[in-house]
Amino acid sequence: MNLNGANGFIPSEMRWDPVGRTWTIIAPERGRRPGSFISLDEKRDELMSDEDSPFSYLNENATPPAILKIPDPEGKYPWKIKVVPNKYPVLRVEGNLERSGEGLYDRVSGIGAHEVIIEHPTAQVQFTELKVSELCEVLKVYRQRILDLKQDSRFRYILVFKNHGRLAGATMAHSHSQVVAMPERPLAIQTILNSAREHFNRKERCLFCDIIHHERDMGVRIVYEDENFVVICPYASQHPFELLIMPKQHSFAYENQDDRLLYSLAMVLRDVMTRLNRALRQPAFNLVIMTAPPLVSKLTRPDYWSSIEQDFHWHIKITPRITYQAGFEWGSGMFINPVAPEEAAAHLKSITIYE
Amino acid sequence: MNLNGANGFIPSEMRWDPVGRTWTIIAPERGRRPGSFISLDEKRDELMSDEDSPFSYLNENATPPAILKIPDPEGKYPWKIKVVPNKYPVLRVEGNLERSGEGLYDRVSGIGAHEVIIEHPTAQVQFTELKVSELCEVLKVYRQRILDLKQDSRFRYILVFKNHGRLAGATMAHSHSQVVAMPERPLAIQTILNSAREHFNRKERCLFCDIIHHERDMGVRIVYEDENFVVICPYASQHPFELLIMPKQHSFAYENQDDRLLYSLAMVLRDVMTRLNRALRQPAFNLVIMTAPPLVSKLTRPDYWSSIEQDFHWHIKITPRITYQAGFEWGSGMFINPVAPEEAAAHLKSITIYE
Repeated sequence: MNLNGANGFIPSEMRWDPVGRTWTIIAPERGRRPGSFISLDEKRDELMSDEDSPFSYLNENATPPAILKIPDPEGKYPWKIKVVPNKYPVLRVEGNLERSGEGLYDRVSGIGAHEVIIEHPTAQVQFTELKVSELCEVLKVYRQRILDLKQDSRFRYILVFKNHGRLAGATMAHSHSQVVAMPERPLAIQTILNSAREHFNRKERCLFCDIIHHERDMGVRIVYEDENFVVICPYASQHPFELLIMPKQHSFAYENQDDRLLYSLAMVLRDVMTRLNRALRQPAFNLVIMTAPPLVSKLTRPDYWSSIEQDFHWHIKITPRITYQAGFEWGSGMFINPVAPEEAAAHLKSITIYE
Repeated sequence: MNLNGANGFIPSEMRWDPVGRTWTIIAPERGRRPGSFISLDEKRDELMSDEDSPFSYLNENATPPAILKIPDPEGKYPWKIKVVPNKYPVLRVEGNLERSGEGLYDRVSGIGAHEVIIEHPTAQVQFTELKVSELCEVLKVYRQRILDLKQDSRFRYILVFKNHGRLAGATMAHSHSQVVAMPERPLAIQTILNSAREHFNRKERCLFCDIIHHERDMGVRIVYEDENFVVICPYASQHPFELLIMPKQHSFAYENQDDRLLYSLAMVLRDVMTRLNRALRQPAFNLVIMTAPPLVSKLTRPDYWSSIEQDFHWHIKITPRITYQAGFEWGSGMFINPVAPEEAAAHLKSITIYE
C-alpha cells in the first residue's frame, strides 16, 4: 500500500471504524516519521519508594482491608498481588439501587464497586517489567474479580482498566489496575455491542472474527500474531500506535478464558508492551478489557438484550498517550490521528525484541 | 434540592444526558467546595509579543493570504479580524471527494476546509477580554464563514470551535478560533441530531425547547437568563462547570441569526466568560458551536435526513478544562464529574460581575 503522494506529501483521509462507529481523520504529518513519536512526558514519572507508597507491602494499613491476596510463591513478600477497595470510590457497594426521573432526565444512584488491583508488592516494579508468569497472575486476578462482581445482579457492566503514567491519568506511580462495576452500561461499550449485534444480525458472522480475517489477508496492520492471538493497529485508530489484542478463537467473555489462554495472553502483552516501550520511550498508556456485560433478562431490559455469546468477541485495547486532544476532538467526537495505522504497525513490527 | 447526605457526605449518582446519550457519574468530592476548582494550568499561558506572533498585524506574510478581513473601525490596525487558511490543515479543499471501501472498512478522501479566525490584530488581547462590540464582530465572522462553506455541496458538517489555553489544546497563544468543513458528520454531532430527531418524532416537541422549559421550572442549574438566551450547567455535565448557551426562540441554525441576536449573544458570552474567569481563575476552555448540518437530499443520504428545522436547536457548549481524563473515561466513554451541576451553577451565579 502506497500511502505517499507526489513529493512525499501524504494526503489525509477519513476512515470509518465499524466497531466504534466513528470517523477518524488520518492526517500524517509531512516528513514526520513514526520513530519521531515519542512520549509527551518530558518529566518522567518517578518511582515511589516503598516507604512512601500506600500500596507497598510495607504499608499494609494504608489501604482498606484486602478483598483478595495472592501469595508470593517465592515467599519474599507477604503477598504478590493485592486487591483492595478504592479509598475514594466513584461508586459504592452500600445502599439501594434506585432508578428515578426528573422531568426529561434519568438518574440512577451511584451504586457499584471500585477496586484497586496492586500488581506488585513493591513500588519499584512497573507493569511493563513484570515477568510473563507474574503478568499471567495479574490477568487471572482480573478474571477472578470480574467473575465475582458478575454475581451481583445490580451491575450492568464491569470495567477493568489500567492507567500507566500521569499523562494517562494515573495518580499513583505504584503499578496498579482498577475495576469498576456499574449499574448502567457506558456509551463506548454499548456502541461496540450495538455494532457487533447489527453485524451479526445481518450476516450471521461475528464482526471481530471478520476483522481478524480481513487483517490477516491484508497483513499491513498486524503487529503480532501467534497461535491464539492477533494484535493490530486498527484501521481507523483514533490515537497513534493504538493496539487491539483479539483472541483468534471466537469468545464473548474474557472471564471465561482458561489458565492456558491467559498465559498465552501474558506472552502477547509482554511482547507488545516491550515494542511500545522501545518505539515510544516508555509512553504513558491506558489498557482496557472489553468483555461482554453480564446478561440481563430480555424482559427486564429489551434495549440491553442480544445474543451476546454469538455476536460479541472480547478484546483488549491499549492506547499510548502521546498526543493531546483539543477542542476539535471534544466538540466533534472526531479524532485526528497523525500516524497512519499501517505505518505504526510497520514500525512496531520492526522493533527488535530480545530478553 | 438537598445534595448532602448525612455527615456532609455527598452520595454519587449516575445521570443520563438525553442529548448526548451518555451516562455521567456525578461524584462530588467530599469537603471540596466549588470555589476550590481552579485551573490546572499552574504555568499560565504566556502572551506572545506581536513581533513573535505569526497571527499579528505586524506579520502579514506569516500566514497564507486572507480569506476575509474585517476593517478596524478605529483605523488603528490594518484590520480588526482576519480569516486565513490553516497552514497545517487536517483537511484540504483541493482534490476530488472519493468514497471507497476496503473489505469491512470505509474511507473518504480528506477533502474539506480548515480555517483560522484571528480574533484581534494584536496578541495582547484574549477572547475573554474582547469588548461586547468586538465579540459581536467575531460572532458575525463565524456566521459568514459557515454560510460561505455551506455553499460547497461536498461538506456534511461545518464545525466552529475555539481552544483557549494549552490545556484545551491551543498551540498558539494569539487569540483565534477555527472552522473545519468536513465530508462526513462527526459522531458527537450525529448523536445529538439523532436524539433531537427521536424526541421530536415521538412528541412533536423540540428536545432543547423542552430542556429550556424544564430548567426554567427548576431554576437550580441556570447561570444566566435574559430575553433571548438561557445558560445552564447541564444536568449530566461531563466536565465541571460545563455551560450550554441556548437561544430561547427555537431555531436550528446559528448562521441564520440576525445582527441583533448575535449582539445579544455577545453580551451573554461576555457575562458567562467573566464568571468562569473569576470562578476558576482564567481556565483553559473549549467553545463549540453546535449548529445544524447542511441539508442533504433524502435520496442521497437517508441516514442523514431529518426534519432538521423542526427538531434541531442550535446551541453553544463551553467546557473549562480543569480536570484530567483518565483510562476510565477513555475506555468507557463514561465521565466522572466531581462537581454537581447545581453546585457549579450556584457558584457561577454568585460571582459578582462589574465592569
